[in-house]
Amino acid sequence: MHKLGIIGYGGMANWHHQSIKANFKDLEVVAAYDIDPERLELARKNGLKAYETADDFLASHEFDIVLVATPNNFHCDYVCRALEAGYNVVCEKPVAMSVEELDKMDATAKRTGHLFSVHQNRRWDQDYRIMKEAYDTGMIGKPFTIESRVHGQGGMVHGWREFKVAGGGMVFDWGVHLIDQLLDMVDSKVVSVYANLHSVRTPEVDDYFKLVFRYENGITAQVEVGTFNLVQLPRWYACGDGGAIVINDWDCSGKIIHTRDTVMNWEPVVVQTKAGPTRTMAPRPADTLEELPLPKVETSWTSYYRNIIDTIDGKAELIVTIPSVRRVLRLIEACFESDEKGEGVKTDI
Amino acid sequence: MHKLGIIGYGGMANWHHQSIKANFKDLEVVAAYDIDPERLELARKNGLKAYETADDFLASHEFDIVLVATPNNFHCDYVCRALEAGYNVVCEKPVAMSVEELDKMDATAKRTGHLFSVHQNRRWDQDYRIMKEAYDTGMIGKPFTIESRVHGQGGMVHGWREFKVAGGGMVFDWGVHLIDQLLDMVDSKVVSVYANLHSVRTPEVDDYFKLVFRYENGITAQVEVGTFNLVQLPRWYACGDGGAIVINDWDCSGKIIHTRDTVMNWEPVVVQTKAGPTRTMAPRPADTLEELPLPKVETSWTSYYRNIIDTIDGKAELIVTIPSVRRVLRLIEACFESDEKGEGVKTDI
Repeated sequence: MHKLGIIGYGGMANWHHQSIKANFKDLEVVAAYDIDPERLELARKNGLKAYETADDFLASHEFDIVLVATPNNFHCDYVCRALEAGYNVVCEKPVAMSVEELDKMDATAKRTGHLFSVHQNRRWDQDYRIMKEAYDTGMIGKPFTIESRVHGQGGMVHGWREFKVAGGGMVFDWGVHLIDQLLDMVDSKVVSVYANLHSVRTPEVDDYFKLVFRYENGITAQVEVGTFNLVQLPRWYACGDGGAIVINDWDCSGKIIHTRDTVMNWEPVVVQTKAGPTRTMAPRPADTLEELPLPKVETSWTSYYRNIIDTIDGKAELIVTIPSVRRVLRLIEACFESDEKGEGVKTDI
Repeated sequence: MHKLGIIGYGGMANWHHQSIKANFKDLEVVAAYDIDPERLELARKNGLKAYETADDFLASHEFDIVLVATPNNFHCDYVCRALEAGYNVVCEKPVAMSVEELDKMDATAKRTGHLFSVHQNRRWDQDYRIMKEAYDTGMIGKPFTIESRVHGQGGMVHGWREFKVAGGGMVFDWGVHLIDQLLDMVDSKVVSVYANLHSVRTPEVDDYFKLVFRYENGITAQVEVGTFNLVQLPRWYACGDGGAIVINDWDCSGKIIHTRDTVMNWEPVVVQTKAGPTRTMAPRPADTLEELPLPKVETSWTSYYRNIIDTIDGKAELIVTIPSVRRVLRLIEACFESDEKGEGVKTDI
């Protein structure tokens, strides 16, 4: 039986709490610390022991795992203190405000010998797992472009995520997930990056960004997150030399399109479109195309904490390792650098 | 009455011929030169005087305008010779293989005093004109991203367009149009460029490319052309601080989406998606959104030759000027440079 205490009992922490409660018999959330008395009151109502100071919380040892779910700028300090105090630590994403911070946290974890991982739970998202399955099994051949988008319409960034000092903005909030997925899926170095960040309706931080990067193996990747994209493009879009895949939304509707012809056995014709005659861009005869359903996948976010527990118990290898999240943070730093310089950045990530 | 002679009576030249025949009373195609006897035979059948040598063609002076519609690597030589021989010259796109070539052609035009223009006819495409109208009249507010795509499925590049020596590939074939449109629409310098070119099924030249660039005014632009994108993304997609527009295809179906609320008067809620809870990416209440039809535009490719004739007759200013196509060619050179170096390129275009 493992017990978990939470530093920062905000929206995400409450979600962790309820999710663990509903899904685990060998993991129980027992305590919380927050600077906000209202959140502590909620923690109490939810059956947790509520600590009013971090010192008391860290001294209690009534739990063996600490979840840090504060605003991003407090991650480094609390993670290090929790590790020093003898706990295994899970940190919300983005793990840190910089690679420098992460390296400090990682050194503390290594020195103290405790587990340290990051809640990159979207490695278990269904849409991502479908895309990964299609990629791993070559369903579209060798891809030349893989595009991952989350287009929201709200036009609002909430709470501390509006503020630069807290590590706000969409690169840190959603970008960190989408980049993590792409680095997890494609086993190749990132050799260059070009990012444009915009503050459309949120003055201090990015609320839209477009990131394009190139892997050493030749694949071009694109990540785009917006909070005021009133028309949405698909969640996933990828094309390869053997076909194309689209996953429309989190509902995981979509399709894979193949060609039936391995050699070209149809005569290209010039077609008249409203944009004039074209042969290269003429539609294919419908019978040369084949539509396949998306692969079925089984996935659950409970796999994240399952792996944490099993790793602590010596029964599994840690999946979300620090080197893997460090790559993501390096790519994020390259994004910020690219946007600030207004040009591309060579990378070795 | 103006008369036109054609150098290179291939597919596009024949299209020019038929289009002029159908639409003009004061412009007549009268002659053609081609190195291919079969094409000359077709020219004869189509009622043209067919010349077997360029010297004879250029010496005839039975026409006052020459259209150069050869493979791209012959543009510079024929344009210069036709200008030197005393003709007004229209050249197919891309005007040249390099800015260096173009500057030579331009210098010849200036010295001889004859008209020199490029057939960038897609400035009059209906889909482009709709997008431009929406941009010019602020229908989506200040845009932060404008994306222009042509996704073909054929997987074939035809004829000389397969070969590097002839200036083949999609950047030169379609990119030159889509870049031209974006430079024509947005009155701002291009300050950096990032391009990835792929040869998916055509070994020598690019048959897919993704280009992202940034204007000095902050807008991010994306151009993407592929010949083997078995799933298509929309022809135009743009988002601004006042709404979004999508034009699905050359059929010009699409929509503009606005928000009805100028101030936020709805309470954001956390929604449960298959990808977990989200507040930032929660869909808006439907009644806060308003769908508008695309603007109506009247446009015709005949405007191109109308402007050429009227310019020669001193009744109009030339629309497709050499400085405007020179910018496009500079951007194309920056694309090639970006792709070769595998990184972004700072520009002042």
